[in-house]
Amino acid sequence: MSEVAGRLAVQEGAHYLGRAYGGRGILLSGVPGVPHGNVAILGAGTVGLNAAKAALGLGADVSLLDVNLDRLRHADDVFSGRVITIASNAFNIEQAVRRADLLVGGVLVAGARAPRLVSEALVQRMKPGAVIVDVAVDQGGCVETIRPTTLLEPVYTLHGVLHYGVTNMPALVPRTSTYALTNATLPYALDLARKGPVRAVRESAELARGVNLWRGRVVYPAVAAAVGEKPLPLDDLR
Amino acid sequence: MSEVAGRLAVQEGAHYLGRAYGGRGILLSGVPGVPHGNVAILGAGTVGLNAAKAALGLGADVSLLDVNLDRLRHADDVFSGRVITIASNAFNIEQAVRRADLLVGGVLVAGARAPRLVSEALVQRMKPGAVIVDVAVDQGGCVETIRPTTLLEPVYTLHGVLHYGVTNMPALVPRTSTYALTNATLPYALDLARKGPVRAVRESAELARGVNLWRGRVVYPAVAAAVGEKPLPLDDLR
Amino acid sequence: MSEVAGRLAVQEGAHYLGRAYGGRGILLSGVPGVPHGNVAILGAGTVGLNAAKAALGLGADVSLLDVNLDRLRHADDVFSGRVITIASNAFNIEQAVRRADLLVGGVLVAGARAPRLVSEALVQRMKPGAVIVDVAVDQGGCVETIRPTTLLEPVYTLHGVLHYGVTNMPALVPRTSTYALTNATLPYALDLARKGPVRAVRESAELARGVNLWRGRVVYPAVAAAVGEKPLPLDDLR
Amino acid sequence: MSEVAGRLAVQEGAHYLGRAYGGRGILLSGVPGVPHGNVAILGAGTVGLNAAKAALGLGADVSLLDVNLDRLRHADDVFSGRVITIASNAFNIEQAVRRADLLVGGVLVAGARAPRLVSEALVQRMKPGAVIVDVAVDQGGCVETIRPTTLLEPVYTLHGVLHYGVTNMPALVPRTSTYALTNATLPYALDLARKGPVRAVRESAELARGVNLWRGRVVYPAVAAAVGEKPLPLDDLR
Amino acid sequence: MSEVAGRLAVQEGAHYLGRAYGGRGILLSGVPGVPHGNVAILGAGTVGLNAAKAALGLGADVSLLDVNLDRLRHADDVFSGRVITIASNAFNIEQAVRRADLLVGGVLVAGARAPRLVSEALVQRMKPGAVIVDVAVDQGGCVETIRPTTLLEPVYTLHGVLHYGVTNMPALVPRTSTYALTNATLPYALDLARKGPVRAVRESAELARGVNLWRGRVVYPAVAAAVGEKPLPLDDLR
Amino acid sequence: MSEVAGRLAVQEGAHYLGRAYGGRGILLSGVPGVPHGNVAILGAGTVGLNAAKAALGLGADVSLLDVNLDRLRHADDVFSGRVITIASNAFNIEQAVRRADLLVGGVLVAGARAPRLVSEALVQRMKPGAVIVDVAVDQGGCVETIRPTTLLEPVYTLHGVLHYGVTNMPALVPRTSTYALTNATLPYALDLARKGPVRAVRESAELARGVNLWRGRVVYPAVAAAVGEKPLPLDDLR
Repeated sequence: MSEVAGRLAVQEGAHYLGRAYGGRGILLSGVPGVPHGNVAILGAGTVGLNAAKAALGLGADVSLLDVNLDRLRHADDVFSGRVITIASNAFNIEQAVRRADLLVGGVLVAGARAPRLVSEALVQRMKPGAVIVDVAVDQGGCVETIRPTTLLEPVYTLHGVLHYGVTNMPALVPRTSTYALTNATLPYALDLARKGPVRAVRESAELARGVNLWRGRVVYPAVAAAVGEKPLPLDDLR
Repeated sequence: MSEVAGRLAVQEGAHYLGRAYGGRGILLSGVPGVPHGNVAILGAGTVGLNAAKAALGLGADVSLLDVNLDRLRHADDVFSGRVITIASNAFNIEQAVRRADLLVGGVLVAGARAPRLVSEALVQRMKPGAVIVDVAVDQGGCVETIRPTTLLEPVYTLHGVLHYGVTNMPALVPRTSTYALTNATLPYALDLARKGPVRAVRESAELARGVNLWRGRVVYPAVAAAVGEKPLPLDDLR
Repeated sequence: MSEVAGRLAVQEGAHYLGRAYGGRGILLSGVPGVPHGNVAILGAGTVGLNAAKAALGLGADVSLLDVNLDRLRHADDVFSGRVITIASNAFNIEQAVRRADLLVGGVLVAGARAPRLVSEALVQRMKPGAVIVDVAVDQGGCVETIRPTTLLEPVYTLHGVLHYGVTNMPALVPRTSTYALTNATLPYALDLARKGPVRAVRESAELARGVNLWRGRVVYPAVAAAVGEKPLPLDDLR
Repeated sequence: MSEVAGRLAVQEGAHYLGRAYGGRGILLSGVPGVPHGNVAILGAGTVGLNAAKAALGLGADVSLLDVNLDRLRHADDVFSGRVITIASNAFNIEQAVRRADLLVGGVLVAGARAPRLVSEALVQRMKPGAVIVDVAVDQGGCVETIRPTTLLEPVYTLHGVLHYGVTNMPALVPRTSTYALTNATLPYALDLARKGPVRAVRESAELARGVNLWRGRVVYPAVAAAVGEKPLPLDDLR
Repeated sequence: MSEVAGRLAVQEGAHYLGRAYGGRGILLSGVPGVPHGNVAILGAGTVGLNAAKAALGLGADVSLLDVNLDRLRHADDVFSGRVITIASNAFNIEQAVRRADLLVGGVLVAGARAPRLVSEALVQRMKPGAVIVDVAVDQGGCVETIRPTTLLEPVYTLHGVLHYGVTNMPALVPRTSTYALTNATLPYALDLARKGPVRAVRESAELARGVNLWRGRVVYPAVAAAVGEKPLPLDDLR
Repeated sequence: MSEVAGRLAVQEGAHYLGRAYGGRGILLSGVPGVPHGNVAILGAGTVGLNAAKAALGLGADVSLLDVNLDRLRHADDVFSGRVITIASNAFNIEQAVRRADLLVGGVLVAGARAPRLVSEALVQRMKPGAVIVDVAVDQGGCVETIRPTTLLEPVYTLHGVLHYGVTNMPALVPRTSTYALTNATLPYALDLARKGPVRAVRESAELARGVNLWRGRVVYPAVAAAVGEKPLPLDDLR
């Protein structure tokens, strides 16, 4: 789903740069004689790389920031040097954010709050009509001023900057997302159908990890802890 | 302006494919494991080539139709064989339109009505939730069911297909469009400012062609005909 | 050798699509105004990726199927989104095979029979004059109707579809294949020549794994089992 | 048709480089660690450019020779510097031909004998097992030793070099060629059908140029000369 | 020769950006995590396009300025949108020059003084250690502070900016330049050798235009004017 | 730093190919009609891949040699088959070195002497005016005739071949190199500043590995051995 969200972040951000929607009124690709718009992307993980791919595709000038130099090297290889890779630190983030027409927040830490990389003060110094799409909004966002929005009212303006905070972006393209999810989950469903739940869970470590209750016993450790029981060890399912 | 409109046609079309806006709910690029969406573009002129560039950039599967084989050859060169070029005729148009998730109408004939290439019956056979962006709408459109819309209410649905009929698309990105227009017109303005109107018009064939009245005489032939005068020949301005 | 076979599969398949050889009579690249031919490739391993590279190079429209989404993601990166990656399942295989002008079977499971992905019934529904090149033919093939053929009589027709079942395709290009093999094996030969067999085998895990008999004792486990001996442990060679 | 022939020249040449067909036994792309094969192409017109495109696509090392530097510049642009462009003269032709694994003759002069650029003596100095595909064979060929062959017996060996002299290569891929021809000719057929022959010929300079006899008078100058008549001027048809 | 000079301008400029030679001490490509250097190129003719090709190849961020929008469009096509094309005017030149690490002057007007686009005041505002390579130096230069230098002492520093003013840059790579020149001139030499001077000049408009004296009569108009004779008309040579 | 050195090796090598500096007088890219220069690169590690990227960017014909076939496969993927990858052995090295206009030595073995791959005898057989840039010079060089030089006197000529033996190439571009180094080291400095040295070292394995003395005890094993003490185990720091 991060692949879908990263690509959508740029497509939707490009749309809201339209003047009629409150954006700066620029075309990311420019045209011959008029420079490209700039897209700054925080994080070079799956979201960031997919956003970079879409932004390059639309002809933008793309800056990609990450603290992990190996990810930046990978991006440099994948995009043949066409994105500007920048080591992420407070100084570089400020430079990149102030230059951006579209800012994509793509720093997600699995199971944790996203780090707050862009302060409200920095948002105030962005170009008027710039657009922020923060894919990390479900995890608190990496931009201080982002708050969750819905597909029906996706944007709001604060300090002259459009904020797009849709929490479940892949729902915008359900036909693509459903196939993508099914591709990932169908093998498990077939396994359950063919072997029955007992054997399927016993033979698949992945399925086993998803079990909450098993024949009346709590299996999932966090749930067991919450109800004061000792969890049934995963190995005992087999 | 055709460059801006062609690129916007795909960007806006991709947006309206979102389910929340009534579209098919697909992402044009697909993701690994899920096929790309299809963009069919009628006309391989400036609008069509710019639309194709943006659609390829977004990762779509692109079909480009034109009656002029030399234009298709040029497109094949420019895009290194990455677009499917198709000789335009009734049969091929029907095939391409029915396969399209996004249909871009880009056939404009200077100073004439656009040819009507897609009938209402064919629109009825398009995929439900497909999107039509007809850049030729100012000249009557190349799709029978298109009618002019505005930037504030850009789309309507007919036969299950979204229609985007904004007549002045470049107005969506005024910052880009203004620079583009100024790049083209500034040299004439400077000429007028430096030389004064008399000398500037005498020395520039392009400016001369734009003169309607000159020292009390009608110059522009169509206007002269309308008022029953003999037009002042352009050569007499010099 | 899988690299050579994958690339040859497309080159030879493209040739046999020629009408004079019984094929559909199409050029995979099309020409401007005439659409590309379609190549469907089963399996995104070494054979599949090399086949995809050659098919893209020849200008075909390429579909690549695999059950492993990570391989499809890798293919999407390597080919910058130019191949259509499709999650492999019965429905998607049927769609892809029926659309294909050239079908390449490249699903090989090391040391096991290739999975039979394309049934005879599905071959019957392929386009007349389509070509199948099944690189997995040595391991039983992933197409039900394939049977081994030779370089001198490489193809036969069944249900109107050409079948290319050459079992040792790299033998078609011995000059390339010999260099490729030598590049891989020369370091071991040099090792044996420099150190003598005893020390070379003691110091190289790879060479040790190839030893069948050692000073009168059976080393290779499968052979030892067949003759009812206890194999000499690899560690004892050192 | 030159587009089809240029692309086929490389596809068929690559095939005949196979050892089983008498060729050098190399794969044009090489594999990692084994260098590419070399394709030398005489002439950077439509045939040559299409051959170069296919050869690059197959991963070969490509040399393109022409006397016209503007054509070489165009090739350098189109292929982003990936083909080696060489000014054609006797010395450079000899160097290129002796280095070639596959030699494509693509120098055609409209309505004239092709210039003989490669002598029999030079063919004798080519690598054993190299392949020559001379697309100019209908016009006498640009290689001295080429003679016409058929699709059923396309090649013969002379001086250890395979010669492919099929005179009507596009007939190998009739499905592609027929669409390509129809795309070019259909507008004229429709014109004749809609307007009737009289008006169609009167209104179309291209159709008029194809008229041999008109209401009992010879129109085509060469025919008129042959029968000793004065031809009816084209302008009199209108 | 403009092709050679354009490519050399960037190669030599990149070298002189080295700190040991007085430059800014940057690598044009940057490395992952460190942004690219910027190359601004004045003029999108042959010099400018070749400079842009080399600068992109070295991984720089490239801005290309020209007053002619068609040339910028061509550059946008050739480089697939990877250079920033900018309409040339005083404001845009100032922005681009102040941002540049390397400035290439490539505006040449055949047979006239190059327009002076960069004033001494603007040079003073360039980054310290930036490099200017003005290919137009033979025609007076498009930078006010440039003056001719030699291959042995190619650079001097003024206002903290390195100036490279070598007047005959192709002489740095005589092996390449000689072949390039010979490719262009050999056909004329062969013509003269084969036909003798009289017939060659009579039959070749290009050779005729190079004639100064003919059988005792002055042919070249400027020379004739200088000596007060009436020139022999070119047509009379035939 | 290997990234910087690899890219500089080609940029500086291209410069010294200039005739005025004693080189062969060729432009690596050639121009249309004149073939590319050849760059041979020994080693497909970080130095070699970055050198190959720069050489391709400058339009050269690039050969990349390594004993490790997986690295060559990786290079083939990254460069889409545009470099010639060659299995490294004495025969292939000789062929490649004799063909090279520019030879880049990039074989570095961490903490060991570089293998001597090019003998003095082979240097004597190189083309006159060819250039050698040996990035491995600090570790003894992979070319027998290389010796250390400085940024101020970077080259010397031996056997008619220019040798560039600068030991600390990244010092030529300190602005780029300093940012690159800081990107890699800043996180540690911040860690030390925030946590104080005690906690920072206890919590970071990387910092701990850099400690020589800790509260009066020798930590670094090699130092401890040299002074005859037992080193304090790293785990005891925590």
